This record gives sequence, C-alpha cells and structure tokens, in this order.
Amino acid sequence: MITVLAGGVGAAKFLQGLVEVVDPRDITIISNTGDDIDLHGLHISPDIDIVTYTLAGISHPDQGWGIKGDTFHTLEMLGRYGHPTWFNLGDYDFATHIHRSERLRHGWPLSAITDEIRHALGVLPRILPMTDQSTETKIVTDEGVLHFQEYLVQRRTAPPVRDVRYEGVEVATPAPGVCEALTDADGIIIPPSNPIVSIGTILAVPGVRQAIAARRSRVVAVSPIVQGATLKGPADKLMVALGYEATAVGVARYYGDLLDGFVLDRLDRTQQEAIRRLDIDVHMTNTIMKGPAERRALAEFVVRML
Amino acid sequence: MITVLAGGVGAAKFLQGLVEVVDPRDITIISNTGDDIDLHGLHISPDIDIVTYTLAGISHPDQGWGIKGDTFHTLEMLGRYGHPTWFNLGDYDFATHIHRSERLRHGWPLSAITDEIRHALGVLPRILPMTDQSTETKIVTDEGVLHFQEYLVQRRTAPPVRDVRYEGVEVATPAPGVCEALTDADGIIIPPSNPIVSIGTILAVPGVRQAIAARRSRVVAVSPIVQGATLKGPADKLMVALGYEATAVGVARYYGDLLDGFVLDRLDRTQQEAIRRLDIDVHMTNTIMKGPAERRALAEFVVRML
Repeated sequence: MITVLAGGVGAAKFLQGLVEVVDPRDITIISNTGDDIDLHGLHISPDIDIVTYTLAGISHPDQGWGIKGDTFHTLEMLGRYGHPTWFNLGDYDFATHIHRSERLRHGWPLSAITDEIRHALGVLPRILPMTDQSTETKIVTDEGVLHFQEYLVQRRTAPPVRDVRYEGVEVATPAPGVCEALTDADGIIIPPSNPIVSIGTILAVPGVRQAIAARRSRVVAVSPIVQGATLKGPADKLMVALGYEATAVGVARYYGDLLDGFVLDRLDRTQQEAIRRLDIDVHMTNTIMKGPAERRALAEFVVRML
Repeated sequence: MITVLAGGVGAAKFLQGLVEVVDPRDITIISNTGDDIDLHGLHISPDIDIVTYTLAGISHPDQGWGIKGDTFHTLEMLGRYGHPTWFNLGDYDFATHIHRSERLRHGWPLSAITDEIRHALGVLPRILPMTDQSTETKIVTDEGVLHFQEYLVQRRTAPPVRDVRYEGVEVATPAPGVCEALTDADGIIIPPSNPIVSIGTILAVPGVRQAIAARRSRVVAVSPIVQGATLKGPADKLMVALGYEATAVGVARYYGDLLDGFVLDRLDRTQQEAIRRLDIDVHMTNTIMKGPAERRALAEFVVRML
C-alpha cells in the first residue's frame, strides 16, 4: 500500500510512472482540493481532475489541464452570455463539472463523486479528496486577496505575494479513508508538487499532519524545485513569500520533521549536506520527468527508498 | 405590436418570416415552457431556445433543435458518467443551460433570464416564457405517464396516447408582460405549432385564454396540420387522442372561439366551409414553409389578415 499526496500536473506525471512500477490497486492518492473553484455555477476540482484524466490516459499531453482533443464551444458561448472565460474549460471537461455539481446538489460528498468518476474512467488507484468540506486557498497579494486560480490563471502569478491562507481548513475534516490511507501505508510519497498550495493545504487539514508524522520513517518527498526554480507553477515565488528559500533545501525545511527521505535532483548535489543536517536521508537522481521513461525511473527510484 | 404564441420549430420558422415583414421590435413572443425538462442538473427550455437561436441566426438549419456547427463532447462524456444521452444537447447549447441554471439557482425568474439571453444573442423581438413557474406536460400512454420529451424524443411518439396533462399549470401565473402583450396587441398570431402541447399549454396558464378571448377580433391561427398530417411532431396523434380530428377543421375546433381568422393550406380547400361554420374567417395560401421565401410570404399573408 502506497499513499501519494498530490497536487496537479507534477503529481500526475509522477503517478503515471508509479502505476508502471507498483500495482495501481495498491495506490491511494490524497488530492489537494484547496484550489477548487466555483465557476458558471459548477464546482471544479482542478487537481483531482488532472490526476484522474492523466491516469485515465485522456489528459492533454502538454497543457497540464484538460482532456486531449477537446473543443471549447461551451466556454465560448458562456462568454457571449457575459461569463468570465479566463479559466479554460473544454467541452469534455465540462461534463465532469456538470456531473460533479449535480451530485453535490443532491448531497453526495466530493469523495464519493471522485470515486465514481475515476471508476467511470477506468482509473485503478483510489483517489481521495483531502476533505469533503470546502476550503479555499487564498493568495494575499499587493493587489488584494485572490483565489489561488485568480492568482495563477487570471493574473498569471504577477502580483507580489504577501501571504497564503487556507480558508476554511481549520474546520475541515479529512475525507473518509484519508487517515486510514496514511496510517496503513507501507510508504507515503510527496511527489514534486507545489509545497505551499498543493501539499501544504493537505497538511493543513486537521489530523493529516499528525497521521503522516506517525509514519515518518516511511515518508519520502521529491523536490519540485531544481536549481532554484520550479519547473511549472509559482512554488518558488510562494516559498519566498512565506520565508523559505526557493531551493530544494527550502522544500526540505518546509516539510521538516515529516520526512524520512528526500529525493534531490543531481543538478542540486551541492545541497545534499544541508538537507542531511535536517536529519533527512538524501538520495540523488534525475527528477525532471520529460517523458514516460523518466517518470517510470523516478517512481522506481522513490519506491526503492520506501 | 404583434404578439405570437410560440412552440418550437414551426413557430421559429414562421417568426423568421415575420421579422422580415414587420419591425422585429414590435414583436412579442410568448413561448411554451411546458416541455421544459431538467437533465444533468440543468434546466432546459427547448421551445424558448429554438426560437431564440433561430432569430439569432445560429440555429441548426435542418434538425429543428440546437446550434449550427455544434459538437457533442459534453454529452458524450456525460454518457461515460452514466447520464442518459437520449436528449441531444450540443456543446454550444450546453452553455445556455448552464447559464440559465446558474441564474435560476440565484433566484432569477425564467423571464429575466430569457430576456438576458435573447439580448446577448442580438435577438430583437421580446421573448417571454408563458410563466415563470414550472409546469410539465405529461403524456399519459399505454406504457405509463411520460414527460413530453420522453414521449417525443426518447420513445419517438411510439406509445399509444390516452391523455395529455399540463401538470402544475393550474397554480401558474403568466410571466410578467404576458397579459399586457396580449391585451395591447394589434394582432395575436398562433403560428403552425402543435395545438395540444405547444399552444394548449400556453392557453392553460390561468388568465391567458381570457386575455386572448378579449382580443378575439385580432387573433389569427395557422393550421399546423395539412392534409391530415403534421409536417413535424406528433400533433396529429395527440389531437386524435384528445377527441379532435387530425385535420385543419380539428385545429380550428380546438382553438374554437378564440379565433377571428384561420389560415388554411390550399391543399385543404375542401375544409374551408366547415371552418367558416365555426364563425371563423378562413383564408387560403401555401402554409408549408420550405425556405425563406415561403416563410416571408406566409408571414405577410397572416399580417395582412390582422
């Protein structure tokens, strides 16, 4: 049993490798829902969706969101009705949000809907939202408080960041199965996801950090920051804003006493001593996943460390 | 000021002609909502939509529903999630239902939403739903009680019909502007729509029949039945089920004392005497609208009778 904390595209790529090296039925994914957003009266769970679509083999190969071969007719028409169109949603993709929203209105918890969707798409690993309650990641910027998607997609991470808030998380509870998946795991993997807005939100759900800490000897993280920059997304900017350095060492410090092992990119070999001083076991490999071979190799490397 | 009671595709074609012969701003359309249906958690108003899309110039040229050039990705994907897919909805079209449903959940009345949508699509005639309340046309068949769309689309009018019910209509009130549009009209047109499930529903909204009767001298209907058959839809079957003959005479009897004038197709000239005996003024022309020229000619003919 392996449990993976997951953000969006970085986690999705890692998971593509992981399902090749362990039985997919032995994998549980705990998915960030802090950047869920309601648009057009529909509930959108971007991180759950990109992980689900990727494991279903239907995700767009490059853009990091959405479904391959999708069209954008619904969004185009919503634009004619005056709706905001800055958040790209394809026509296949809309079906997921329409289905999820209908279920939510009928009282289904997000966890049950997520499970139903991954089954419908033939995804074998379990996917659990971190919580069934609504939490919202807000970015406090010089231009005001923005929903994470507004900051990321609408404003393209331009506004200087002062703080990050996980609104509502203090009264959230882990979704059914989340604590068990951590407690019973033979290994817990934190893939190269954004520490602040993908993994930090999961860790902020009351009970999750404690459940992981209790299994510290089985926890391995992969740095999403290589040579001081993120491959994708604003992790570096957000790290700095919260007082961490935007380096692999900064990531290791952020996770701190949760980690037993840390996967450092070979390009960052000079940082291994600093991380070892945090009482974390460091292993080096290539962490940049350009294609299926690299994804599989990284997953194999991490699984061997568990 | 001309007010048109409208069903779906028959009314939409007639209206295409009408906007060519009178100022579109002087036209008010009262649209049937009895065959509205909730699917996928979205509210669909098929008759309002086909009239709006047609007048916006974006309707599919042949199929009688939906938007030209549309794709069906959302519906295809909803099918993967186990949703019923018998009711065709394109991706452009979904935007209308998503927008309408969001507005309804925020408390907007259907009439305000309908007006917003027709403005967004550049439609000049006013379009009013017959009522802002939910009413459902049910077809009582040998196979049970079916929603009109189930009877029409899913079962393709196969089950023998025993009765038609307008559920909820007795407690509905005309939408804002409906009674005024009838009272103030210089002419009221009943285009070649289904008498039972398109026009009958509108007439069943308390107050509407009286408002039309008070303007009887200005009311003209066009028969949707030519040579004993409907050009489209199940009007003939439903007429017979309710005890009317499936002829132009049957249609004239159904509308009865609401009519001042009746437009009979030349192919049905043998029926003119029977209709005149109902104290209705009969005029004959070609009522089959094969293209823009016929639509315009029919509209011109009807307007001259008002």
